[in-house]
Amino acid sequence: MAENRVGQQTIVFRNPPRIISSFATVGPDEGKGPLAQYFNDILEDPMLGQKTAEKAELKMLESTIEQTLAQAKLKKEEIHYYISGDLLNQIISSSFSARTLGVPFIGIYGACSSYAEGLGLGSVLIDGSYADKVLVATTSHYQTAERQFRYPIELNIQRKTSNQVTVTGAGVSILANAGDGIKVTHATFGKVIDMGLKDVNDMGSAMAPAAVDTLVQHLQDTNRSVADYDLILTGDLASQGKKMFGLLAKEKGISLGNKHQDAGDLIFSPQQDVGAGASGCACAAVVTIGYVMKEMYQGRFRRVLLIATGALMNALTFQQGESIPGIGHAIVLEV
Amino acid sequence: MAENRVGQQTIVFRNPPRIISSFATVGPDEGKGPLAQYFNDILEDPMLGQKTAEKAELKMLESTIEQTLAQAKLKKEEIHYYISGDLLNQIISSSFSARTLGVPFIGIYGACSSYAEGLGLGSVLIDGSYADKVLVATTSHYQTAERQFRYPIELNIQRKTSNQVTVTGAGVSILANAGDGIKVTHATFGKVIDMGLKDVNDMGSAMAPAAVDTLVQHLQDTNRSVADYDLILTGDLASQGKKMFGLLAKEKGISLGNKHQDAGDLIFSPQQDVGAGASGCACAAVVTIGYVMKEMYQGRFRRVLLIATGALMNALTFQQGESIPGIGHAIVLEV
Repeated sequence: MAENRVGQQTIVFRNPPRIISSFATVGPDEGKGPLAQYFNDILEDPMLGQKTAEKAELKMLESTIEQTLAQAKLKKEEIHYYISGDLLNQIISSSFSARTLGVPFIGIYGACSSYAEGLGLGSVLIDGSYADKVLVATTSHYQTAERQFRYPIELNIQRKTSNQVTVTGAGVSILANAGDGIKVTHATFGKVIDMGLKDVNDMGSAMAPAAVDTLVQHLQDTNRSVADYDLILTGDLASQGKKMFGLLAKEKGISLGNKHQDAGDLIFSPQQDVGAGASGCACAAVVTIGYVMKEMYQGRFRRVLLIATGALMNALTFQQGESIPGIGHAIVLEV
Repeated sequence: MAENRVGQQTIVFRNPPRIISSFATVGPDEGKGPLAQYFNDILEDPMLGQKTAEKAELKMLESTIEQTLAQAKLKKEEIHYYISGDLLNQIISSSFSARTLGVPFIGIYGACSSYAEGLGLGSVLIDGSYADKVLVATTSHYQTAERQFRYPIELNIQRKTSNQVTVTGAGVSILANAGDGIKVTHATFGKVIDMGLKDVNDMGSAMAPAAVDTLVQHLQDTNRSVADYDLILTGDLASQGKKMFGLLAKEKGISLGNKHQDAGDLIFSPQQDVGAGASGCACAAVVTIGYVMKEMYQGRFRRVLLIATGALMNALTFQQGESIPGIGHAIVLEV
């Protein structure tokens, strides 16, 4: 049995990597929401002066990477690996930013679970002495996601109440084998779970079963209970999925009490007309980096379980009648 | 300095993971090429009786996974992680096969370099004692790739001589911390290199600079020369890119002699009217699993450097005037 595992599915980091620098950039709408005070940078122009939304997403990611490096007073040459994933076809934001950064690149795809998947893999590389410093990033943009997965925004399609709005934002963290910062102590990579749900206007409910599966497995593997965590943050289930998550957890005998919050449920206020809430790769990332980590430094949370969730369909699978597989990757953060 | 690294970019596996089982499935055309005898399974029907090409690609991958497990007499419950990536938007073949397999899933995207990226990450998980057994897979299909990146095949668009044909196939390997099999001794994850080439009808030339960058870095890091390898196999540069690879290597003072072969150049015969040769995620995978590993067991090659290459654009970046970034991930295989 591999010695850095517990139970069936969970990795234990014996020399927990430190998150030595993080930076969260969000768009103007996210900057008007209840978490505004927590973000490092709020864009005035979601297009960043670019001609296309894809170029805007890329520029936002690149500028967030630059600021994460600057904050840690690190040069890009000191970074051993760059791990990133995003929602765009063939993860072009990640790949194109890797071209600019010039650091060995490990491209990942976990849809909106990418930030947790990246933190998990980056922590493996650091803890296993394969790297000293790893930069983990993800990004999403309302306009690129809408036109790729749904409709061009120019059509002004009416939103359903169960729809989620893709977060415009980028979240970047640097993991290191030394230094001050929040520790990554465990990673539970999730299984792909599909309960047969097909409504692309309710992705939260489709992802909730995967998040619960990872939660149950994580608690069992680590022999912990909800009480051992100050916060369980799911990625982007939003109001519908959050409800489902609570119900399914209860069915498994897990009472979440007041410990559960969902990034997709936190980032916008109900007055912002965003349907069920937020989603997107950046959602879990900017809420973790902005809200959670800052509250950890303030002493409000000491140990947090992040379960970032992803819906693993594309625009074609829906047309071909496929249901929506979900995944949840969990990471334990500790001060 | 992380102890399991040499030089600037290369990982050394102190307890080299073993590839205990591998299986290569190819389509009918690949089964008529010069490497036919090496493949484990040659499909009679590239559609596998499915209604859509995407479902065919998925079924091909799932059946290859099943046969890789059966060959090793392993149950899926014995696999700790499933790592996979493919060319389809949001890597749906990988995600949907993960749903069937039910093993914790780490989705990756490296375009046609996915097999090497997966072997590298899988080896990190095994060598670092985070897992006992990891299943690494990739797939591509001529019909899904054509209609996603180029034109529906029904249009019968004429091929240019520098065009490459996407391999229909799936390659799956199981890495383990014990057992018999080829060893993975090093991994050099590559940087994204873009020399400004924009011709999507000549991807080989666009990827060659990244492959050379990884080759140069790998040799420097390990203090080795071409003479230390019996074979340097690039992923899918095909005839144009292979030429470019040789020229760029020469410029860096590296003479490849007769050591270099390219998977995209090997898989089809010139009589098969395939333009410059083959490409696709499956290309490097099935040639490595079929041809290279079997010849390693026969004693023809003892130490092989695989540099699987990927072109990191999508159908939109081309339309938006972007050039084609390339990447090359290197893995050392040894008997």
